[in-house]
Amino acid sequence: MSPKIIQPTLVLNKTICLQNIKTMIKKAKRNKTSIRPHFKTHQSQKIGDWFRQLGIDKIAVSSLKMAVYFAEDGWKDITVAIPVNVLEIDRINSLAASIQLNLVVESLDVVEILDAKLQHRVNCFIKLDTGYGRTGIPSDNHPQISQLIDSIQRANKLKFLGFLAHEGHSYSARTQSELSRIHKDHIQKINAVARQFVNQCPTLIQSVGSTPICGGLENFEGADEVRPGNFVFFDLMQQRIGACDYSEIAVALACPIIAVHEDRNLVIIHGGGVHFSKDFLTLSDGTVCYGQVAETLKDGWGKPVPNAIVRKISQEHGIIVGPADFVKKCRVGQLLYILPVHSCMTANLMKSYHTTDEQIISMMP
Amino acid sequence: MSPKIIQPTLVLNKTICLQNIKTMIKKAKRNKTSIRPHFKTHQSQKIGDWFRQLGIDKIAVSSLKMAVYFAEDGWKDITVAIPVNVLEIDRINSLAASIQLNLVVESLDVVEILDAKLQHRVNCFIKLDTGYGRTGIPSDNHPQISQLIDSIQRANKLKFLGFLAHEGHSYSARTQSELSRIHKDHIQKINAVARQFVNQCPTLIQSVGSTPICGGLENFEGADEVRPGNFVFFDLMQQRIGACDYSEIAVALACPIIAVHEDRNLVIIHGGGVHFSKDFLTLSDGTVCYGQVAETLKDGWGKPVPNAIVRKISQEHGIIVGPADFVKKCRVGQLLYILPVHSCMTANLMKSYHTTDEQIISMMP
Repeated sequence: MSPKIIQPTLVLNKTICLQNIKTMIKKAKRNKTSIRPHFKTHQSQKIGDWFRQLGIDKIAVSSLKMAVYFAEDGWKDITVAIPVNVLEIDRINSLAASIQLNLVVESLDVVEILDAKLQHRVNCFIKLDTGYGRTGIPSDNHPQISQLIDSIQRANKLKFLGFLAHEGHSYSARTQSELSRIHKDHIQKINAVARQFVNQCPTLIQSVGSTPICGGLENFEGADEVRPGNFVFFDLMQQRIGACDYSEIAVALACPIIAVHEDRNLVIIHGGGVHFSKDFLTLSDGTVCYGQVAETLKDGWGKPVPNAIVRKISQEHGIIVGPADFVKKCRVGQLLYILPVHSCMTANLMKSYHTTDEQIISMMP
Repeated sequence: MSPKIIQPTLVLNKTICLQNIKTMIKKAKRNKTSIRPHFKTHQSQKIGDWFRQLGIDKIAVSSLKMAVYFAEDGWKDITVAIPVNVLEIDRINSLAASIQLNLVVESLDVVEILDAKLQHRVNCFIKLDTGYGRTGIPSDNHPQISQLIDSIQRANKLKFLGFLAHEGHSYSARTQSELSRIHKDHIQKINAVARQFVNQCPTLIQSVGSTPICGGLENFEGADEVRPGNFVFFDLMQQRIGACDYSEIAVALACPIIAVHEDRNLVIIHGGGVHFSKDFLTLSDGTVCYGQVAETLKDGWGKPVPNAIVRKISQEHGIIVGPADFVKKCRVGQLLYILPVHSCMTANLMKSYHTTDEQIISMMP
């Protein structure tokens, strides 16, 4: 494949990706929870098809634009897992005319606006905050939750579906026991809310889930539905959290070497912030990492090259510091495969995939 | 304008932008240096036209792909200001057939490959490292520079043009005197190299320049050519360096408010890492900033709202912490204008501009 790649290119190993999807579906089943994969990571109708072929029929997305893109490809049950942007009411009405659209609300103001402007029936989740602190009603604020449920149930075209929460603080975990503690605390808080309101809404759903939890823990029982997304590709961040092994990372950025400085153990690649994103990891020794070099194989990449790390990036350059024996073998015009720190952000920038079996897969424009 | 914006949108104030371009052209003239603006920031043929109408006829870009995009719009003198990616030799040959293409080299290996494969005459700069440490030949390594000039002069289709350097370390400056010190040191080093080789190549050019230096200093004499790019829009980073005032920032991201948490002084916007990028500033109190709220005016934005800062971002969410009186006035469905930390990265993600006088300007696809 390599001879055809001449510029920074996001390479996808379909075998690993399919395995990641299958593993997560099985894991959800074993945990007696339904799975609604988050498609914000891959943003691709084609990759969405792989999920569909494995039995998935409901998804989460992170914007209404993305909901439209997947609805156009036949997805009929879509949760937009971000508080409603009421300025997009026309998109909401047009989507709700043809699919089961599930929105996320967390204020009376939004329910009021939706009630006034919705033309079709829409389901809605109440967003709870169990400690991440981004958004949502604090899960212990039962009066506020109760008031919001009432307003949803009074609204003409809204159906209350249940509670949705995102344990984003799981991203700071670095051990299984931390992940487990965060998950248990999260689930207990949501379960407590559910118990409080189950009489009022017997069919309510508890929707949770992040890749650190669903990837890193064998046991994540306790919710009705999980919404992991990143697991489709994984990345260095997830490896560091303990949610995957290096061998489960399904994407790498193939970058041409444009300079080698043996005297300083530097390899410069064409591949920078407009390809990787500026997301970085802080390694255990306090240094930062924007990507990790993996061995170049005939048909893709292999194991990580120890200590060959993208240390700095600017708009189009990446600066790799590596061990002398690695740098010595690097030549301008070769490709290096770099495991990304955050595959969601990298995929969003690259806008298409080049699979290891030489297909081009497009993404949402 | 606001009623038409319903999702995160990059808004451009054309008046400020034109003023920035005019100011820099005048400043370069005053400093008796020629200007080759770097187009990697705006990546737009339309905005390129504004430069052309003000007399600019040569540009710098950061990739061959970008060179192709601007060459298609009639630009005839383009420097690709990143070491040559030899895998793109076909693009180089096709460009060099129709424009004056200036490449950047820093190794004998690359000169050898170009010599073997070039079909048309190409100019080339030698990349010098004056202290930034990204790439280039250390400016005090005269034997290596001499060897490289010889190999370029022996090559059939290469013409040695001079020395190119980027004072990227100017981005860490926070005062005029730091900027001035970095610039003087940089210029002295390049001038020393030029003096050494001017007999061998009497027409050699010294090309330098970054927005911190050209924006922040009144006096940046000493080089033949400057290549600033970011000044077309500026941003919070440049304001912090001292290269511009808030009032010179020509772009802001208009983001819908999707949640308000008065109890925690938080405003949540639709606008995250896929819109702003993950570039951040560390403020003087040690906290981080991904963007700064500006006042909403009828036809765009005004002054910064003191202490209303985007403190955290995830893929699609931005979390603004602001003073109570600001948060109290925020309502879901309103737009907030956010000044970006790094306009190059934000523009690259947004892929088009919405001007304050309601034009849509496209960018390189």
